[in-house]
Amino acid sequence: MTTIQLYDATLRDGMQGEGMSLTADEKVRVVHKLDELGVDLVEAGFPSSNPKEAELFDLLARERFAHVDIAAFGMTRRRGVTADADEGLAVLAASFAPVCTIVGKTWALHLEKVVRVSAEENLAMIGESVAFLVAQGKRVVYDAEHFFDAYRADRDYALRCVAAAQGAGAETVVLCDTNGSSLPSQIATAAADVARVVERFGIHCHDDLECGVANTLAAVEQGAVQVQGTMNGIGERTGNANLISIIGNLQTKMGHAVLSAEQLGRLTETAHFVDELLNRVPDPQQPYVGRVAFAHKGGMHVAGVRADASTFEHMEPEAVGNERSLLVSELAGRATAAEKADALGLEVDAARVIDRVKELEHRGYQFEAADGSFELLLRKEAGVYEPLFRLESWRCIVEQRADGKVETEATIKIWVDGERYVRTAEGNGPVNALDRALRDALTEIHPHLRDLELVNFKVRILDETKGTGAVTRVLLDTSDGHDVWGSIGVNENVIAASWEALVDSLERAMQPARVRS
Amino acid sequence: MTTIQLYDATLRDGMQGEGMSLTADEKVRVVHKLDELGVDLVEAGFPSSNPKEAELFDLLARERFAHVDIAAFGMTRRRGVTADADEGLAVLAASFAPVCTIVGKTWALHLEKVVRVSAEENLAMIGESVAFLVAQGKRVVYDAEHFFDAYRADRDYALRCVAAAQGAGAETVVLCDTNGSSLPSQIATAAADVARVVERFGIHCHDDLECGVANTLAAVEQGAVQVQGTMNGIGERTGNANLISIIGNLQTKMGHAVLSAEQLGRLTETAHFVDELLNRVPDPQQPYVGRVAFAHKGGMHVAGVRADASTFEHMEPEAVGNERSLLVSELAGRATAAEKADALGLEVDAARVIDRVKELEHRGYQFEAADGSFELLLRKEAGVYEPLFRLESWRCIVEQRADGKVETEATIKIWVDGERYVRTAEGNGPVNALDRALRDALTEIHPHLRDLELVNFKVRILDETKGTGAVTRVLLDTSDGHDVWGSIGVNENVIAASWEALVDSLERAMQPARVRS
Repeated sequence: MTTIQLYDATLRDGMQGEGMSLTADEKVRVVHKLDELGVDLVEAGFPSSNPKEAELFDLLARERFAHVDIAAFGMTRRRGVTADADEGLAVLAASFAPVCTIVGKTWALHLEKVVRVSAEENLAMIGESVAFLVAQGKRVVYDAEHFFDAYRADRDYALRCVAAAQGAGAETVVLCDTNGSSLPSQIATAAADVARVVERFGIHCHDDLECGVANTLAAVEQGAVQVQGTMNGIGERTGNANLISIIGNLQTKMGHAVLSAEQLGRLTETAHFVDELLNRVPDPQQPYVGRVAFAHKGGMHVAGVRADASTFEHMEPEAVGNERSLLVSELAGRATAAEKADALGLEVDAARVIDRVKELEHRGYQFEAADGSFELLLRKEAGVYEPLFRLESWRCIVEQRADGKVETEATIKIWVDGERYVRTAEGNGPVNALDRALRDALTEIHPHLRDLELVNFKVRILDETKGTGAVTRVLLDTSDGHDVWGSIGVNENVIAASWEALVDSLERAMQPARVRS
Repeated sequence: MTTIQLYDATLRDGMQGEGMSLTADEKVRVVHKLDELGVDLVEAGFPSSNPKEAELFDLLARERFAHVDIAAFGMTRRRGVTADADEGLAVLAASFAPVCTIVGKTWALHLEKVVRVSAEENLAMIGESVAFLVAQGKRVVYDAEHFFDAYRADRDYALRCVAAAQGAGAETVVLCDTNGSSLPSQIATAAADVARVVERFGIHCHDDLECGVANTLAAVEQGAVQVQGTMNGIGERTGNANLISIIGNLQTKMGHAVLSAEQLGRLTETAHFVDELLNRVPDPQQPYVGRVAFAHKGGMHVAGVRADASTFEHMEPEAVGNERSLLVSELAGRATAAEKADALGLEVDAARVIDRVKELEHRGYQFEAADGSFELLLRKEAGVYEPLFRLESWRCIVEQRADGKVETEATIKIWVDGERYVRTAEGNGPVNALDRALRDALTEIHPHLRDLELVNFKVRILDETKGTGAVTRVLLDTSDGHDVWGSIGVNENVIAASWEALVDSLERAMQPARVRS
């Protein structure tokens, strides 16, 4: 069976989505994650469309990847200039990227209304641009924009466009459903036709008809050897075809070994990693990788799964690094709590723990991302919890002074072993200042708290429609170098919620298991 | 062309999704909304599985619908009892619902591992149950559970099951991909086979492979005359097939007139209505009905849309009650800025505006959701911006006192027309307190600012991995009762970022257009 090439467009096409933006550093981290997953090609963007992209390519040039090849993205030459005189192509040629992906027109409607070039000139633009980059020693991926609309409008011309790209030496010619206007059956018909004209073709779909994944698979069934998509389907409008689901389907449903079993096991982690960087709440219902993608609620289902998982599941969740969850039907809930308590060597009344969790979740708490706070909850229930200190008071002052300077100062007053500690610290923000003041006091007694680092800080407004009166949920991730744990705070006051999460994160660090380790 | 029957399972199968729950009253409102949309059948649930369902059927019995028929949902008779002795079937027969949908087994694996009945007994259970309800004067929809898994395991037996249901008088036999384990090509093959055996068949899919919608359409292409789905695809695990997208595709892409043009215009409103009742944030990227489903960001795209919308859109957004939106972004062309400036009657150098936007977005600003701040930026560029006040300083104090009480107090010192205003206010959080103090001063001069309401408050940490040292982006939505606008602030200090957004939101409210209106 031909191997399918995985082409990720998250960093370029994906960034067209509303609110999508990553720093150059973050983009490099994404490429490493995609490299570990086993993606073949990563579209990084146009080398110098703006400072951020320029910075990104400088960084990428210095990185080494085990598997991934970087693709620089651009367009065919402008009309009326030779390829070697086109600035855009020159930038691509000069880039370190071994692969260049260029997009060109296929659809008469666009030639007339958008770029205003003749059909013949467009064919020349395609052929010469591809040939130029090939002559510069680049591997060229040619994206045939609006291929399917063009095919429906003028089959012969659409086929001439892709043939021109291949004739000029393109490694792969990609059929793009740019407007996301095609159905799987239309994709299949056109792709079968292309297969008669072109050696190696790929597919690039969007999700406007909620068929992005199915459209991609339809093309693969007709011989496409490259699938383009984005992590979790991020992208403009309704998004691009979701590469996560495409991988899952190719590998577990269609028998294409696109990844090793070990790489496939990273699918869930990779999907969540990208969401985290974008500060998107991972979709709990996302196919293959969602938190509840393998969850069961209906009583009959739960019974069935117990009898034989295959009765109600299309695959083993573990294969994609996900897990089965039986939703808080009392029973399932207790089992989970009991399991976690056992793992910590704690004796708890699981039923009471669940009641407590339900009550807290009703108030906006969420323990899935706050394992540290959940552990403290279990210890309290088990009666083995020891507070790190007794709080007298804390105060945080943030001011913008007359000279325009913003200053933050926090003061904490706490008691430890009958001793009173009063500390004040400045910070770049209220939480940072409170953290410094609190740890300034605590590290005198517990020096190792000095090594802790707050690695992640998330704020979510729970009932956003209540404006600033809404309840605020703060999630903190803390690391001691080996181990990372999450803590949570909920309060209508964002600073008070942050304080609560901060205290949990430090107390969790002091629990026996860690002190021993 | 055969008319396709729209069957909505939101109130029954949809409620299997995590966190999905509606009161009986709310469910009745949903049915009315579905009736207006033009849905044919609504699956309301099992008439007395619990008090809530019982109440629902009492209410529904008293309602009148223009178009919708209510379907009561149940199962085939238990093994070893006659159909007329089965309590479940008796409840269905007694229900006012003109339609009864019953689900039965098709898959040997389930017969062995879950229900433990013989293949022959199962056929009898199907036939006798359908026949009983038909004899009671019901129209019967038969759901063949796990049809596609069963078909792959034992084609002949699967076909005998659906034939048995039809033979006993079922109006429609529905092929259910219960585990969501099938791909469109598999659905097509099996459906084509069924079409040779059964008169009227329908399709019920889930989205586990992100192919729920495509699978449904694949069955329609093979002759399915009933499509089952849920509003926005809610449901267990990854959800059911999304009836909203199915309707959009059937009507606008496949030429099936399932709705009138006027009903199709209600698609967006209906989708959002259900989300609202379920207290779900509507997915802005949802196909057809999402807020940004027809948004454009890429500069080339924006230019194209302006030339001719069909160049970058698969349809007119208005046809489904949605609208086009152009996003401002570091990737966007000058055209967008120019258009927004025109709309405000401002003269700007679009190129300079874009450079400014790029520079700001590089620092973490994002104007897509902050149209208010973008308007102010345009006014500054046009030289017609007038600040609402001159800031001397602000200060915010948040403290948890020794008695445990959290208190927040803000003081602002500003100048307006040479007058100095010093105000202090308390609030339930820092932003709320600053807002009160600031407006306390400003409303003396601009009374109408009193009517403003902060309706939405979002906080994003931009480089989360920098922990509390990360840059914070605050988005505020403000309403004056008619109009809602977004404003943005970016600062490493969350309070300073909030202040910036707050000031923008008030200044935007003071701009000429609004004061006139």
